[in-house]
Amino acid sequence: MGYPKSLLNLIECYKRLPGIGEKTAERMALATLRFDEKTIDTFSESIKNVKYNIKRCKRCNNYTEDDLCSICSDESRNHSLLCVLEDPKNINIFEKMDIFEGVYHVLDGLISPLNGINPDDIKIKSLFKRVDEENIKEIIIAVKPSIEGETTSLYISKMLEDKDVIVSKIASGVPMGTDIDYLDSMTLEMALEDRKKISNNNE
Amino acid sequence: MGYPKSLLNLIECYKRLPGIGEKTAERMALATLRFDEKTIDTFSESIKNVKYNIKRCKRCNNYTEDDLCSICSDESRNHSLLCVLEDPKNINIFEKMDIFEGVYHVLDGLISPLNGINPDDIKIKSLFKRVDEENIKEIIIAVKPSIEGETTSLYISKMLEDKDVIVSKIASGVPMGTDIDYLDSMTLEMALEDRKKISNNNE
Repeated sequence: MGYPKSLLNLIECYKRLPGIGEKTAERMALATLRFDEKTIDTFSESIKNVKYNIKRCKRCNNYTEDDLCSICSDESRNHSLLCVLEDPKNINIFEKMDIFEGVYHVLDGLISPLNGINPDDIKIKSLFKRVDEENIKEIIIAVKPSIEGETTSLYISKMLEDKDVIVSKIASGVPMGTDIDYLDSMTLEMALEDRKKISNNNE
Repeated sequence: MGYPKSLLNLIECYKRLPGIGEKTAERMALATLRFDEKTIDTFSESIKNVKYNIKRCKRCNNYTEDDLCSICSDESRNHSLLCVLEDPKNINIFEKMDIFEGVYHVLDGLISPLNGINPDDIKIKSLFKRVDEENIKEIIIAVKPSIEGETTSLYISKMLEDKDVIVSKIASGVPMGTDIDYLDSMTLEMALEDRKKISNNNE
């Protein structure tokens, strides 16, 4: 009532974003009002561009504006080392840390029979096709440790057991700086199981 | 690096909004990617509309798309009762609560000699002009209790002391549900000073 229609419309738009409630949307809309014209035009265009320009990489399913994403088309990367991820946004975390020089494959989900998600519902066939067609030596599965994650890892390793490719998955355990008191039992169990020898006293 | 340019551009735009950091901007941009085309077009347009369609009401300085805001042009409201506010967004709070049937005047700031903000720097002259030209019977000053707020209230009441208009300001004191232990001394002092008699035992 107190605000003109344009402002109310923008508040409604902001409220559709995750974690944005009425108050925050209002503050964001009022801030938008104070942006200069150049920022407004860039902002307005960016929203359209993100929807109309971004598609998925034909090879790895990463977000891209071209047929192949910047990682798949980068000749300097190690294309024989493949990291399997659940979601395209996971790629950004690896890239930010600058700890991985291989390429990726995004599954766009995890196998979950309980929720009716079968291997055919995620992008797993194209992974096996890549193993057949590309010169891949090692696959590192980096999906979250969970029933769905374990099921997916097991399925991939089973399907690839006859192929000449090493399949590994990232380690599960206690994260750095975490108090043992606050750990869930599943993590603790995995940390115990995957324990690492640090002395050779008994040899 | 991991994300395509369109996505990075939108993340940068979201980061310009108040209280939005890298992580939230990223989450918001990824959510935008999943909006349907209609929502995207509305969102993109809304941002432009808010900048190019919204101006200030010629009478009260509220946000509006026309010459006069919806409140000033509403004949059913009490145009002889005027509430003076610091910022246009304050109007929305009053309107939402539906507790005020008069009209508003937005100062767009408060007098603050320490910060070099003099009466001429805020929209206070137009307030006095309204008192001269419109049939205003009472002015309620509803600005935040602070040195700037008190200075502004005092200035308005001084400037209007010869006019046939009642000037009041909203009460200061302890907010509902607040523990006295956590009150600042200035609020407590104001609450003591403005104390209200509730029994007549000593009469």
